[in-house]
Amino acid sequence: MIIVMKAGATKRERDEVVKKIKEFGYKPHIIHGTTRDVIGAVGDERGKVILQSIEFMQGVESVVPILKPYKLASREVKKETSIIKISDNVSIGDKDIIVIAGPCAVESEEQIMEAAAAVKEAGAKVLRGGAFKPRTSPYSFQGMKEEGLKLLAKAREATGLPIITEVVNPETAELVAEYADILQIGTRNAQNFELLKKLGQLKKPVLLKRGMSMTIQELLMSAEYILSEGNQSVILCERGIRTFETATRNTLDLSAIPVLKQKTHLPVVVDPSHATGNYLYVAPMAFAAIAAGADGLIVEVHPDPEHASSDGPQSLKPNKFNTMMEKLRLFSEVSGRCL
Amino acid sequence: MIIVMKAGATKRERDEVVKKIKEFGYKPHIIHGTTRDVIGAVGDERGKVILQSIEFMQGVESVVPILKPYKLASREVKKETSIIKISDNVSIGDKDIIVIAGPCAVESEEQIMEAAAAVKEAGAKVLRGGAFKPRTSPYSFQGMKEEGLKLLAKAREATGLPIITEVVNPETAELVAEYADILQIGTRNAQNFELLKKLGQLKKPVLLKRGMSMTIQELLMSAEYILSEGNQSVILCERGIRTFETATRNTLDLSAIPVLKQKTHLPVVVDPSHATGNYLYVAPMAFAAIAAGADGLIVEVHPDPEHASSDGPQSLKPNKFNTMMEKLRLFSEVSGRCL
Amino acid sequence: MIIVMKAGATKRERDEVVKKIKEFGYKPHIIHGTTRDVIGAVGDERGKVILQSIEFMQGVESVVPILKPYKLASREVKKETSIIKISDNVSIGDKDIIVIAGPCAVESEEQIMEAAAAVKEAGAKVLRGGAFKPRTSPYSFQGMKEEGLKLLAKAREATGLPIITEVVNPETAELVAEYADILQIGTRNAQNFELLKKLGQLKKPVLLKRGMSMTIQELLMSAEYILSEGNQSVILCERGIRTFETATRNTLDLSAIPVLKQKTHLPVVVDPSHATGNYLYVAPMAFAAIAAGADGLIVEVHPDPEHASSDGPQSLKPNKFNTMMEKLRLFSEVSGRCL
Amino acid sequence: MIIVMKAGATKRERDEVVKKIKEFGYKPHIIHGTTRDVIGAVGDERGKVILQSIEFMQGVESVVPILKPYKLASREVKKETSIIKISDNVSIGDKDIIVIAGPCAVESEEQIMEAAAAVKEAGAKVLRGGAFKPRTSPYSFQGMKEEGLKLLAKAREATGLPIITEVVNPETAELVAEYADILQIGTRNAQNFELLKKLGQLKKPVLLKRGMSMTIQELLMSAEYILSEGNQSVILCERGIRTFETATRNTLDLSAIPVLKQKTHLPVVVDPSHATGNYLYVAPMAFAAIAAGADGLIVEVHPDPEHASSDGPQSLKPNKFNTMMEKLRLFSEVSGRCL
Repeated sequence: MIIVMKAGATKRERDEVVKKIKEFGYKPHIIHGTTRDVIGAVGDERGKVILQSIEFMQGVESVVPILKPYKLASREVKKETSIIKISDNVSIGDKDIIVIAGPCAVESEEQIMEAAAAVKEAGAKVLRGGAFKPRTSPYSFQGMKEEGLKLLAKAREATGLPIITEVVNPETAELVAEYADILQIGTRNAQNFELLKKLGQLKKPVLLKRGMSMTIQELLMSAEYILSEGNQSVILCERGIRTFETATRNTLDLSAIPVLKQKTHLPVVVDPSHATGNYLYVAPMAFAAIAAGADGLIVEVHPDPEHASSDGPQSLKPNKFNTMMEKLRLFSEVSGRCL
Repeated sequence: MIIVMKAGATKRERDEVVKKIKEFGYKPHIIHGTTRDVIGAVGDERGKVILQSIEFMQGVESVVPILKPYKLASREVKKETSIIKISDNVSIGDKDIIVIAGPCAVESEEQIMEAAAAVKEAGAKVLRGGAFKPRTSPYSFQGMKEEGLKLLAKAREATGLPIITEVVNPETAELVAEYADILQIGTRNAQNFELLKKLGQLKKPVLLKRGMSMTIQELLMSAEYILSEGNQSVILCERGIRTFETATRNTLDLSAIPVLKQKTHLPVVVDPSHATGNYLYVAPMAFAAIAAGADGLIVEVHPDPEHASSDGPQSLKPNKFNTMMEKLRLFSEVSGRCL
Repeated sequence: MIIVMKAGATKRERDEVVKKIKEFGYKPHIIHGTTRDVIGAVGDERGKVILQSIEFMQGVESVVPILKPYKLASREVKKETSIIKISDNVSIGDKDIIVIAGPCAVESEEQIMEAAAAVKEAGAKVLRGGAFKPRTSPYSFQGMKEEGLKLLAKAREATGLPIITEVVNPETAELVAEYADILQIGTRNAQNFELLKKLGQLKKPVLLKRGMSMTIQELLMSAEYILSEGNQSVILCERGIRTFETATRNTLDLSAIPVLKQKTHLPVVVDPSHATGNYLYVAPMAFAAIAAGADGLIVEVHPDPEHASSDGPQSLKPNKFNTMMEKLRLFSEVSGRCL
Repeated sequence: MIIVMKAGATKRERDEVVKKIKEFGYKPHIIHGTTRDVIGAVGDERGKVILQSIEFMQGVESVVPILKPYKLASREVKKETSIIKISDNVSIGDKDIIVIAGPCAVESEEQIMEAAAAVKEAGAKVLRGGAFKPRTSPYSFQGMKEEGLKLLAKAREATGLPIITEVVNPETAELVAEYADILQIGTRNAQNFELLKKLGQLKKPVLLKRGMSMTIQELLMSAEYILSEGNQSVILCERGIRTFETATRNTLDLSAIPVLKQKTHLPVVVDPSHATGNYLYVAPMAFAAIAAGADGLIVEVHPDPEHASSDGPQSLKPNKFNTMMEKLRLFSEVSGRCL
């Protein structure tokens, strides 16, 4: 941690800061600059919010943290990319590009079975489908709940595809974990720390979506919650951030991929469907995500999007998904990956 | 709902849209424009996400919703401002400006008792203090939990001030409700719909903070969750939104106050402490909030901010808080309110 | 400037950085941390972008600048607030709150004379009116140009009010300066450095609007352009920043006022009309701006906003402006100022 | 244009709106809804800002524009993608992916000649280099000006590569046009309408960078300025938008590519260097841009980035650029393009 003193700070003010640094158990180190002094506080500053209190001592201009606040998620701590095992033949983070696909919400047995068959046929490796749905409006369809989980399990049985579904409440987390192969944390719950802790205590892989106004660093801090509770199987998901642009639902931040690849060993998948909110833009963004280095995709596919109970406009029909997958195979190869 | 057809849309495409509108139980109404047709779909569109599916029919350019998606929170439905009763002599939304004050987190009996006495002395009407703390880092202090609630109750007994504290989990909501007079939903849980529903089922007033990337309309949708479950005592709180500016922790959106006053009957309070993240900016923003028409404030006050376990840099010392309150009294009067 | 080395950086890499720092004429100062080294580079780093090149040397994690990049605009360099003299009896930055008012654009002699008389009557001290209009659409009214300047001068003659008008092009800057008492730089030109330099060479006070996506620091850098060319009469104007919120045209960042008051000696005025884009929100935001410590306001007033050629929806009618001014007087007094 | 009346609007208020619509020369068309009326105003609304004045008539809730405000830039007006001819053998918008490369600023003859040779060797088709540099700080290097233009011309002569350079001022636009093959408008001048008009009057192709807080629609409006002055050779450039994320300099909005491909016939290139601000992220974002459907790239390449006078940290060395180009060739082929 670096403490920058004000230009006119007195020796007395500086001495007080040095004293406080020692009081907190750190080693102060003064650099006399041309217009002001700068003091280094040597020691592990992570989790020591109390050090921030130095920020408003007399004569202090600012406090600059040096260490990243996450440890377990950091590539410094673990150099090799984590490979998250989902089932006997599906892993995320390895050479294979993993495409997760399916409808936004499970709506009926017929719908999920048809979707599952279609996405498998096209090359998807995991089936998605929401059973508990977090919706902006209390008047919107809230999901089929446990009934939906049972239908997902049925679709898994029929196709062999592992299933991913969202967890919205610590109270129902264990129930969902009984059925699902991957537990998804949605964008609105990405800083629901109670939920993060709960999933950290379970043994299932977690796909953590970036909150729509979360920085990359905060995403890694949310991952740290899960990791620090003992669950090492975390998959990060970029799904668009909130900006001023309204032509797309959110702004897909694909530069997050190379940034995350630098900073963390956790695998990264991309959700082009929720990010753009428009099926027309899903395929180009899927290709771009793989070209940028993503380990996989999560894509909405619905056999009959016109009648979908949620997110119809951004869902691909099976034939469009199939066309996309064919082209995606070429992009994967060029990227040195397999699909 | 208004459906805008593309410039070159065919009659057949338009007929399909008209057919679909009828199928959904609405009445279509075509306007032939100079370059394109526009179709009105008459009927209550709220909660009918399925209508969006029209957006990607052939020949359709865009679908424009007409109705606001919230009902119970709307001033159209309830013209007079809601007055939320907190205790026998404290109500929010009435002529009195209500200042809620206290430390970010309850840290010890001494701390909370000292803070409570100080804020009461200065004119605060409600005591704040976190017992369950949602923290970005899993390594930061997570709150004293039930022990903290007991200390808050003790402070209430000593001072007569009603207390507000945050709820972070549906599982512990009832426990918190046993102690608190107002249940707070924090910015990171503002779209934790499970938590919103839970608090909607309890009988205690709820202070709902705006999520840091939530639009005003989404804030009202989150309020709608609580209202639609049967709890009519909702207080809205503007606490800063996330923008590109880094000189303050968030950007306090004070225009949200007159906008909310137009759109909803629910009272509005402002949190200048979390918005700015710097005690130097708290008083000016508090004055501005009242001048803009807020019904109250929630302010962090700590007897010893240098040693606070969280948010020290934005906490006022009791003497500074006192000075602020004196000036705030004048701003309240000029605004036609009492403090 | 502080150079943070990577955790695993070698001694050789560190030596290279130290060598480079010396090569650039700075004094290196190494702090050995628990997980990594940090190197201070002592010297004046402003304007020395070349130092950034250290950022991508082997073994370097990040480079943290210590000094603010502006000098002349800084309160460190000039402690007392600058008072910008506009005319014999109008100054901005002193005890008086200065309200600048008038129509968005000069449209006719009748309109500007009527507006000028009305705003003077209500207590405005400066008349605004655009002659050269920067418009998003090439098909919108682009202003009356020199003819508009002449009408403004006529209105000044009739009322005694000094006039402010926008400059959009270095080529016409001198022409505008012949007529205007204050030269305005609009939000879209706030980083048009050629225009900033040009106005820095003229002798007239400049009102510099914050660009809608400019940080406070960048606003001060734009001010620095004008100051460094020799023109010390710069008034800063907060007029809303671009965020995701759509209920208002932009988000008025009132916390910029206390932040600017800390960082610079230049006076600060606020434009609630362009920020909100809706006349309903102008008065509350005007009151809030003064409560937050602004030195003045710039407000759109139009005798007949229904027929305004631009920005009608955010313009106040003279009677509404008058009502606002009466209440503003009270807020000014409570703020220790005069109106 | 659609006018939405308030729920409780009276017949008289509605009649006033209808009268006003007719007064403006439009044809009103009323739809009686379940809770409120909606009125369509049939006619070409573009450039008719005056219609907005309806927004604040009594009883009106909101006014929704139907037509896009741009015409010439719209794909509705011109279906086939524009191919912008740069030189005898270079066109942008056709099957070839065009890579523009070179240093941020021209610094010396040696530097630009070396850079030009290197980027040509690697496959770039146009040479970039700034002679007039818009810099945030007045104390930073402002470019070699005409001397720089001459060096660019010399590099063109030596390599045969056409050259692109930035125009920062209407006054020097013609001078720059004498030398350059493409005139660049930078992000900070993207709404400098005087400059846009000036370049619209010249005969040279223009590369228009998106302003860092411009919506896609506003970008098209800026293009419309150039087009409406008679210059049809406009190339759009996505270069990152300003968001809350700080891990990259800006957030590259690659979804803008498919959105622009829907809305306009103008070609689209991407600048991954300025968007990310870090050479490490340039190649992945370049690959992603092509995969998303971009027509070209503009990339910073510097023979000695450690000593660059600006933007060193984001510049590629020639060997890294070469490696990137080799892989880019594969991505171009998979995208059905040539490099």
